[in-house]
Amino acid sequence: MLLLPPDRYPLTPGAELADRTERLQAALAAAGLDAALIVQRTDLAFFAGTTQQAHLIVPASGAPLLLVRKSFERAAAETALADVEPLPGLRELPDRVRSLLGGPPARLGLELDVLPAAQYLRYVELFPSVRFADVAPLVRRVRAVKSPYEIDLIRTSAALGDRILAQTPALLRPGMTELELAAELEAFARRNGHEGLVRFRAFNQELFYGQVAAGPAAAVPSFGETPLAGLGPNPCIAQSASHRPIGRDEAVIVDYVAVRNGYLSDQTRLFWIGSLPPVPARAQQVACEIEAAVREMARPGVEWSAVYRTALAIAERAGLAEHFMGFGPNRVGFVGHGVGLEIDELPILGRGRDEPLAAGMVVAVEPKFVFPGLGAAGVENTYVVTETGLDSLNRYPLGGDQPASPGGSR
Amino acid sequence: MLLLPPDRYPLTPGAELADRTERLQAALAAAGLDAALIVQRTDLAFFAGTTQQAHLIVPASGAPLLLVRKSFERAAAETALADVEPLPGLRELPDRVRSLLGGPPARLGLELDVLPAAQYLRYVELFPSVRFADVAPLVRRVRAVKSPYEIDLIRTSAALGDRILAQTPALLRPGMTELELAAELEAFARRNGHEGLVRFRAFNQELFYGQVAAGPAAAVPSFGETPLAGLGPNPCIAQSASHRPIGRDEAVIVDYVAVRNGYLSDQTRLFWIGSLPPVPARAQQVACEIEAAVREMARPGVEWSAVYRTALAIAERAGLAEHFMGFGPNRVGFVGHGVGLEIDELPILGRGRDEPLAAGMVVAVEPKFVFPGLGAAGVENTYVVTETGLDSLNRYPLGGDQPASPGGSR
Repeated sequence: MLLLPPDRYPLTPGAELADRTERLQAALAAAGLDAALIVQRTDLAFFAGTTQQAHLIVPASGAPLLLVRKSFERAAAETALADVEPLPGLRELPDRVRSLLGGPPARLGLELDVLPAAQYLRYVELFPSVRFADVAPLVRRVRAVKSPYEIDLIRTSAALGDRILAQTPALLRPGMTELELAAELEAFARRNGHEGLVRFRAFNQELFYGQVAAGPAAAVPSFGETPLAGLGPNPCIAQSASHRPIGRDEAVIVDYVAVRNGYLSDQTRLFWIGSLPPVPARAQQVACEIEAAVREMARPGVEWSAVYRTALAIAERAGLAEHFMGFGPNRVGFVGHGVGLEIDELPILGRGRDEPLAAGMVVAVEPKFVFPGLGAAGVENTYVVTETGLDSLNRYPLGGDQPASPGGSR
Repeated sequence: MLLLPPDRYPLTPGAELADRTERLQAALAAAGLDAALIVQRTDLAFFAGTTQQAHLIVPASGAPLLLVRKSFERAAAETALADVEPLPGLRELPDRVRSLLGGPPARLGLELDVLPAAQYLRYVELFPSVRFADVAPLVRRVRAVKSPYEIDLIRTSAALGDRILAQTPALLRPGMTELELAAELEAFARRNGHEGLVRFRAFNQELFYGQVAAGPAAAVPSFGETPLAGLGPNPCIAQSASHRPIGRDEAVIVDYVAVRNGYLSDQTRLFWIGSLPPVPARAQQVACEIEAAVREMARPGVEWSAVYRTALAIAERAGLAEHFMGFGPNRVGFVGHGVGLEIDELPILGRGRDEPLAAGMVVAVEPKFVFPGLGAAGVENTYVVTETGLDSLNRYPLGGDQPASPGGSR
């Protein structure tokens, strides 16, 4: 198997996989599950260091077993796990599970949030006496807390994000369409090492790099569980950049995701040609206040929902509550989200999420405001939660000090 | 709701939606289903002309009803369907289905191939007396046959694909890495109207534009249900371009998907710097022979599997069977696939697929050969099935007549 040297094709160290597995096993034991059957590609990347087609059996205690359908030789070359075997057919799975566990399982965990129903029904057939539980909440909680190794990878991703955003004023030209701006941003991103795929875990959600939209197009709502969307080129690609030319004195919002080593970072800045109109200008100021306030108060032990309440209270005091995180019925009930191998990781800094932040969580904090018919404003950085508060992995300044010609930024 | 003029934001005509709905309704009636509940975004795009978050109830007879969660106003502006209403909560769905059908349903169809298990289990709870069936095979068969309107859209996509491939020899420079070539191809693609998202229906499958790989890296197998993969930058993004520099006298395979108006087209060509080594050169000749033979024999009434057998027989006669469509255990059992709003549509021109081709089907035919440690070869065009055979939507020549400096192509 041809693999490049580690500096050009980095593999996940065995100690990382061992620590991640241990944390999942503690959660499995606490939940009374005999084992988890992991099949989704990002969960496989996280626990096995490979995205090859496989079943990873993680017993509540003991060594995990990676059973590979395609490609076995590649998975074996990539993973640091000790036990890797081919799985010629799904019918052999029950025997392999039984023999790994030393007896028939009673309760197994599956990733029910992403597993297609047809595949789930096949497992129900294959394991007639097993009760299945959704293991996704456990997996997502383990994945929410990043190791120093992962934080370094996200830092690299965030550095790329900084360069993309910092390039925007130079790329923004009067008369270009949103799609033309997107093309230039992406060309720069890709040439500088962006790996392309922005992975969304949730069903029916997707992103191509992120969102670029200007003026009233930035205020058009869409299907996504996101504060902003943009018009897009047609109803089939119903978000981000459209064929609309960017006008003078319009707020141009750029919310782009960087990807390096499979890890994402998420960042938003506001730009314009000419001058920024008063409504988005003021909202942008409030967004920066929220960002600063969240950065101040978020730390281990603070509840996810408390971060949202802090943000919302500032929006309310500014008289902008109805425009906060979307407009009217299209508002979303969060101000930030976890970022890692997927863009929609835990924690969700939102309404009703009464769990505490923990050191090592990585969150994108994105206060945004939407004004129908006019435009949008907002900022976003990716942070790691430390004992002393949020440490920004992004370095590009939040606003105010960028060259204003041809485009300004704030 | 801001929408651009139809030439800059095209909506799907009502007559298209009516015809598609009728064809699905005939299939529902034949299968004894009272209705289909459509929720996946590409199926919604196809039957409702919008990808907003919604349930589309298609009764076996009568008008469909689009129930929208987010964004209602955008869905209402985009769809040509007459009946569009908001759906505030999932709990109201059973009443809405009952009232549309004029009584409680006995059998409902769901897209079980893509619907997450957790969401499926929620429907089971909501409709305790209903038997659910997988409606995906019916939906996918309706979608496999394209209307003249759709074929025109795919033709536009294929014209973009032609331009991308034709640009490759000018972009290919000695010493550049595969990722650098990918970056240049994508910059050109995006500037010329590529819409970005390449949608894969199958679980855990994904593509970012397609695949670019050179020499031995092109022969590295991966998770995908594809003949080729490529190494990619790391095990998390385990396909397509890698950090490996492209050498002289290596086969550089470019398999890129174009996207316009949400519709995909799929195309592959082989390029090189210097000269093409004899093994891929000969395989490339055989691939071109297969492409010509398939083009000759495929027409309405011919079974999907017969197309594969024709291709395989030519590979066997050339002594290349073990290298055909992958190598050894990583071979895939097809030589082509349907293309439309998704890259993995019906028909599958493969082993065991004993259904007849129909006029209006759009297929990518992609004979490919893989030589471990050495490289890959292959061609691919996107065709529409007509009464007289396959009509190529791609115009860029299969090979042989491209400028050979700095890169050649065949």
